[in-house]
Amino acid sequence: MTNLLILGRSGRMGQALVEAAEADAHAAVGKTHDHGENLLTAFAGVDAAIDFTVHNFTESVLNAALENNTPLVIGTTGHSDEEKARIVEASKTLPIVFAANYSVGVNTLFFLTQKAAQILGNDSFDIEVTEMHHKHKIDSPSGTARRLLEILNEETDTSYKEDVTHGREGNIGPRPAKEIGMHTLRGGDVVGDHTVMFAAEGERFELTHKASSRMTFSSGAVRAAIWLQGRAAGLYDMQDVLGLK
Amino acid sequence: MTNLLILGRSGRMGQALVEAAEADAHAAVGKTHDHGENLLTAFAGVDAAIDFTVHNFTESVLNAALENNTPLVIGTTGHSDEEKARIVEASKTLPIVFAANYSVGVNTLFFLTQKAAQILGNDSFDIEVTEMHHKHKIDSPSGTARRLLEILNEETDTSYKEDVTHGREGNIGPRPAKEIGMHTLRGGDVVGDHTVMFAAEGERFELTHKASSRMTFSSGAVRAAIWLQGRAAGLYDMQDVLGLK
Amino acid sequence: MTNLLILGRSGRMGQALVEAAEADAHAAVGKTHDHGENLLTAFAGVDAAIDFTVHNFTESVLNAALENNTPLVIGTTGHSDEEKARIVEASKTLPIVFAANYSVGVNTLFFLTQKAAQILGNDSFDIEVTEMHHKHKIDSPSGTARRLLEILNEETDTSYKEDVTHGREGNIGPRPAKEIGMHTLRGGDVVGDHTVMFAAEGERFELTHKASSRMTFSSGAVRAAIWLQGRAAGLYDMQDVLGLK
Amino acid sequence: MTNLLILGRSGRMGQALVEAAEADAHAAVGKTHDHGENLLTAFAGVDAAIDFTVHNFTESVLNAALENNTPLVIGTTGHSDEEKARIVEASKTLPIVFAANYSVGVNTLFFLTQKAAQILGNDSFDIEVTEMHHKHKIDSPSGTARRLLEILNEETDTSYKEDVTHGREGNIGPRPAKEIGMHTLRGGDVVGDHTVMFAAEGERFELTHKASSRMTFSSGAVRAAIWLQGRAAGLYDMQDVLGLK
Repeated sequence: MTNLLILGRSGRMGQALVEAAEADAHAAVGKTHDHGENLLTAFAGVDAAIDFTVHNFTESVLNAALENNTPLVIGTTGHSDEEKARIVEASKTLPIVFAANYSVGVNTLFFLTQKAAQILGNDSFDIEVTEMHHKHKIDSPSGTARRLLEILNEETDTSYKEDVTHGREGNIGPRPAKEIGMHTLRGGDVVGDHTVMFAAEGERFELTHKASSRMTFSSGAVRAAIWLQGRAAGLYDMQDVLGLK
Repeated sequence: MTNLLILGRSGRMGQALVEAAEADAHAAVGKTHDHGENLLTAFAGVDAAIDFTVHNFTESVLNAALENNTPLVIGTTGHSDEEKARIVEASKTLPIVFAANYSVGVNTLFFLTQKAAQILGNDSFDIEVTEMHHKHKIDSPSGTARRLLEILNEETDTSYKEDVTHGREGNIGPRPAKEIGMHTLRGGDVVGDHTVMFAAEGERFELTHKASSRMTFSSGAVRAAIWLQGRAAGLYDMQDVLGLK
Repeated sequence: MTNLLILGRSGRMGQALVEAAEADAHAAVGKTHDHGENLLTAFAGVDAAIDFTVHNFTESVLNAALENNTPLVIGTTGHSDEEKARIVEASKTLPIVFAANYSVGVNTLFFLTQKAAQILGNDSFDIEVTEMHHKHKIDSPSGTARRLLEILNEETDTSYKEDVTHGREGNIGPRPAKEIGMHTLRGGDVVGDHTVMFAAEGERFELTHKASSRMTFSSGAVRAAIWLQGRAAGLYDMQDVLGLK
Repeated sequence: MTNLLILGRSGRMGQALVEAAEADAHAAVGKTHDHGENLLTAFAGVDAAIDFTVHNFTESVLNAALENNTPLVIGTTGHSDEEKARIVEASKTLPIVFAANYSVGVNTLFFLTQKAAQILGNDSFDIEVTEMHHKHKIDSPSGTARRLLEILNEETDTSYKEDVTHGREGNIGPRPAKEIGMHTLRGGDVVGDHTVMFAAEGERFELTHKASSRMTFSSGAVRAAIWLQGRAAGLYDMQDVLGLK
């Protein structure tokens, strides 16, 4: 049982982390911390700490972790170069997971999309990608979809510029073999759906991820904290945690 | 039990009709006819005839049907104005079903899409349509998808030209409320999938049709032939057969 | 623009109602009310009131509505016979919507499932129903799925007891024509997915509803309140609001 | 370009193999062979041969292949122990692919299901499997689904007997964490759909395969024949061809 310190108790992400830790059979919420409380005291006696507050709190968190020799999961983003350098420095003494996306499912989707593209290729399989997000999202396609396209481009000798098409209309003729269709749906309050499809004569193979709440990120962070137990000092990401390297 | 005459026995569609009639609990294949055989003899003693051969055979078929007072299902397309006039003329004496698409499922999709659009509207629901066909298809979107868009435009005070978008890319901002997203996937040997989605805060409602073979057309034609039994003279389509008017 | 009074401002459902009203182009949150505040004052000057608090508050709500001649949407459940009688009595003077489920999408699913079953039947179409809910749900299948099965049984001359099967295993032979397969998935935090499938030779037709939050109920209630404007006194449900009778 | 000999030209599978070879950019149909024709002559000058005829033809095929030093893809099943021994014997001299299922997609599904189960596990993810086949199929669940369950059982410390449930009904309480839900749909003419779902708080991950024709098997066999070029003598299966070992 990994005894956790959750930082930012009263924030929405802090609450989600507490919930995720309580739901995980291998973790427990030993302590929580919130703005204005003593940080050093909070770190005493826990097995790992998880911080999803704000990037300019990272320095204080690193100092407290170093003092207590506490493994750390950092989920904040937007760090300055100096702040990043401090993380790297601390990781020489402590095991630290520092990832942009803690969702186990999204990282699995990335990994298995790469595997599928290596196995199926684009000679006899036609690749199409769909994603759907809520109506307020302003950019298309999503960052996750763009990362999927990067992986597919790398594995199939195609490029975003020349081979990815965003919509089809008119008498455009048969589908070019190397084309990758990208379909960006928007509507309602959809948190995030992504599907990668490989279609050939006689069969289709699909990988799908559907996010329904920020629990997808908090439970990944808890998993990272558990994984850190007994780990050597170093800087890790979710691919390490999931054993996908 | 409706005793059927299937015309064009050796053609692919003729074979599909025989198969569909044999599979239907309310129909039987009384007779079949093929190129060069006596047509009048074939019509004797059957309850209805189904013709999916070629449009320039229609005149002979009409004459034989009139002579035997046989209800008729006409599935051929591409008739000249004169040929069409002959069908209308014959329908004053005989009950005839003459439809462009005999698929029960596609006609149901059309009908229920209209109902759903009337109920849900596009004030709080965002409408998105997806379709997928095989890689050889040269036009986008499919005729069926275009008909779905027509229905949606009629019911939601939108237009194909101004409100239907075929693909999204870039920092295009939040989704316009009246926009209808049309997503045309191509790949493999997909016979034809269509989905109409209504997405709102808290829920999604979807109507989906998946065609897997031409049986979808032949079983609809058999159903039309059964429906013709005891029907008054007149010209009908699949909406009549399905009771969707 | 319908000017609304939302009761139970600080509750989860009250908050969802405020959010739904603000999101609807035809409604505005004129006033809100919470425990202990003056109810009569709250009702003054609004076009309709929505109450999703608790059933033993209904009497006070009805009195205030009658005094102000305010159309009412009642979303509470569990009323005693006496409380129900009071609602019926008040509906002789006021237009009132009183429904068990305010989700527009679920009511649409019920209505279109009935239509689809009438059109497609179960002679050539095989009917299968799937639903998925979160892992904590203790009853199977869901109430919504049971209502879907009721509708299907009514329209296809089948019964829950004799024709609905919950799972298949072993060398059980070909599918009986009248069988309805019911598949109850459990896992994660799924709010509620339901699919009704009609599968025939050559095609499949599917109706799907996916709930993602209680907004699905609050936006239905706001829609009911707007619908009440200018309506005669009487007791209505969501089928009336959606024009599905 | 791999120059192929297709055996059993006039059979349904032979025709599918010819079609698959013609559709593959790296293969060509050099020769075909049918019942009663000279086998040794057929083998002359080709790069590989594919046999999906009948198991008691294997001995003749092996002899002709050995004589011409021709790599072989064997797709027949039901061999006697003696026939199998002959294949093993021949594989000491020739490279031979001998697999029970040549579908690239199904083999990919097996491989990625294993990977997904290793990454996601069943601590925080709930596993549910669905499959759908045509109404004539007599056994439930399908052989492919059973293989998927085997893989899942191996990777999650569960067993078919104790943890796999086939249907849920009644007030059965919350979902046991280790339970695997197996849902077997039957209807219409569905060739074969399989989905493995991992559902957690906040996210779902799904792997799906949809077969639409026997081309899924023939194109896998053609791929195996191409893969055999320049390969050392030995007995291989589709996992070798796809590089999944």
